[in-house]
Amino acid sequence: MKILILGADGYLGWPTVMYFSKKGYEVYAVDNLSKRKIETEYGVEPINILKPFNERVNIWNKNQKNQIKYLVADLLNYKVLCEILEEFRPDTIIHYAEQPSAPYSMASREKAVFTQHNNVIGNLNLLFAMKKFCPNSHLIKLGTMGEYGTPNIDIEEGWLELEHKGRKDRVLFPKKPGSFYHLSKVHDSANIEFACRIWGLKCTDLNQGFVYGISTEEMELDYENLSTAFHYDSIFGTIINRFITQIACNKDMTVYGKGDQKRSYLNISDTIKCVSIACENPPKNGEFRVFNQFTEFCSLNEIAKKIKNYADKNKIRSNVTHIENPRIEDEDHYYNPTNTSLISLGLKPIIMDDNQIDKIFKLVKKNQNRINLNTLDPNIKWKK
Amino acid sequence: MKILILGADGYLGWPTVMYFSKKGYEVYAVDNLSKRKIETEYGVEPINILKPFNERVNIWNKNQKNQIKYLVADLLNYKVLCEILEEFRPDTIIHYAEQPSAPYSMASREKAVFTQHNNVIGNLNLLFAMKKFCPNSHLIKLGTMGEYGTPNIDIEEGWLELEHKGRKDRVLFPKKPGSFYHLSKVHDSANIEFACRIWGLKCTDLNQGFVYGISTEEMELDYENLSTAFHYDSIFGTIINRFITQIACNKDMTVYGKGDQKRSYLNISDTIKCVSIACENPPKNGEFRVFNQFTEFCSLNEIAKKIKNYADKNKIRSNVTHIENPRIEDEDHYYNPTNTSLISLGLKPIIMDDNQIDKIFKLVKKNQNRINLNTLDPNIKWKK
Repeated sequence: MKILILGADGYLGWPTVMYFSKKGYEVYAVDNLSKRKIETEYGVEPINILKPFNERVNIWNKNQKNQIKYLVADLLNYKVLCEILEEFRPDTIIHYAEQPSAPYSMASREKAVFTQHNNVIGNLNLLFAMKKFCPNSHLIKLGTMGEYGTPNIDIEEGWLELEHKGRKDRVLFPKKPGSFYHLSKVHDSANIEFACRIWGLKCTDLNQGFVYGISTEEMELDYENLSTAFHYDSIFGTIINRFITQIACNKDMTVYGKGDQKRSYLNISDTIKCVSIACENPPKNGEFRVFNQFTEFCSLNEIAKKIKNYADKNKIRSNVTHIENPRIEDEDHYYNPTNTSLISLGLKPIIMDDNQIDKIFKLVKKNQNRINLNTLDPNIKWKK
Repeated sequence: MKILILGADGYLGWPTVMYFSKKGYEVYAVDNLSKRKIETEYGVEPINILKPFNERVNIWNKNQKNQIKYLVADLLNYKVLCEILEEFRPDTIIHYAEQPSAPYSMASREKAVFTQHNNVIGNLNLLFAMKKFCPNSHLIKLGTMGEYGTPNIDIEEGWLELEHKGRKDRVLFPKKPGSFYHLSKVHDSANIEFACRIWGLKCTDLNQGFVYGISTEEMELDYENLSTAFHYDSIFGTIINRFITQIACNKDMTVYGKGDQKRSYLNISDTIKCVSIACENPPKNGEFRVFNQFTEFCSLNEIAKKIKNYADKNKIRSNVTHIENPRIEDEDHYYNPTNTSLISLGLKPIIMDDNQIDKIFKLVKKNQNRINLNTLDPNIKWKK
């Protein structure tokens, strides 16, 4: 089985590359390194020292029989993309290769345009290249639960069976995304659904909650050399990773606004498992399938409380402060998203317990001297 | 009242410019002339001889007291766009400035990417420039009924009050667009709804049926010099204009596929009236309002039948041929779109009767020597 992983140098891309290599897949890892460039631009760094993309792959290849092939390339370069697909003809394509930060997309017009251009056109190029060279490949596309917003009805998995004035239809679930980044993913989903419907491509769109955690089985083989980026900053850091960094630095956990905003999340190891489950259970040709990819959901306050409980038990000082919400979002809302598809296909969720928090806490403590506390505070506002 | 018209050189833009000028508005007309460039590229021409953009405006200005200001500029050039808004500070912005052809967007990857990039990024630039220089302006944005596709439920106006598992919400109407062009309009709508929600901009999104007809009151002042483009070709020609051209040339009316596809449409004079009604009845700040802008709907076969009836009465030979559908679309479906908003605000629909058909027929006959019959047949297929 041949698998092409786009965005292979990212927080999720890199562990995905190692996972499928270890499993015996023929892996082709591609990245344009744009996230490392954005890190440089904003002066934010992961807490751990990351080897360059090529070096990480070379280290893996030195110690493993199953070799990973890699390339630095950009989906906006259609010619190179075609060369990759024509040569490799993957069975599965995992597409993480998008600008992944909501705050970044809200920083300015330039960043909003960059995000939508990069994500939407890159994805369009991929659809056209697939149609041309590998129309039977299974596209696994990473979306986000943030595409849905916080509707007052249950969030179904991508599609909605609805009844209106006595008539029925099955429609794409109506969305209310919360940033230009989230909008770019909504646009992608609409373009992909069309490509499935018109050209018969097949896709699994994974609407993912935010991911926390620092390690997967494959990283543990050689954590020093194979770890993935752990971000705690306000641009790339997800909330659980950020809160744990704050308590490790003897800082208050900063909750945006009231904190009753509810969000869904999952452990990084479960991301890999979900992608693997999608890969092993492809949809049929022409199908646009959507899975909601998360294992738990609760409010930001409840997340902070779980981390505070861990801190109390371990005699670590912790406190919660509510700061002005830089985002514009409902802070008091109904939230009931469905995630039965992946569970029914065999996902056994990892729960965010003291043990999971402890693993992250220890990594942060170990690298505490690398932390730049200034990058924790949000400096990008949704409305200036 | 100051009104900025973007896409002012187009089929609808140009009559809109004259209408508001005649009404006493201060009009700023902007176009990048991209449609004329696409015409050149594909070797298609309107049936009537069009004066260049600047010349049309100059002729108008010579004969009218209320002067139109104009500029050739592209929404993709953010700097120029900002200069326009900063200098002019319009009360209303009418945004027609998008690549308007579904077949063009389906011709190749390049055309699909051009369409989505041009439309989505141009519109994004406009939102950012409005936020900066005229956040209280009313944006009137042209969308299309084709964004909805042909759902099995009634098509409401942009929003849907829905009930799901005993809970209620008001959501954006779920869409199923039929081309990369239609998708670009869906993406625009999603971006605009977000800008209204987050920044408090106000917008009327006009989801328009296809437009037929050749003249408006202002054109009649000097049709030779002030007419708008009449396209009969398979790229820019809308179906009624195309069918009438076919009977005028003693050709069969070519219906795509079974012809039971139902579509909504309106006369070009009603387009201008609808835009005027939207302009005079702005939404409140922060509101994303959607009107379905059409006056009639029926199947392609019924449209052909109406034109055949006119032909029979006037002893013109006419015949209907069904050709292979170049598009992928439902040819047998439920269709019941709502259009009560504009009617309740005062629109008195023009019905497509023999008189309307006759006006078009006579224009075509007069310019018959300019018709290139080769451009009538669709040569762009949705699936190659």
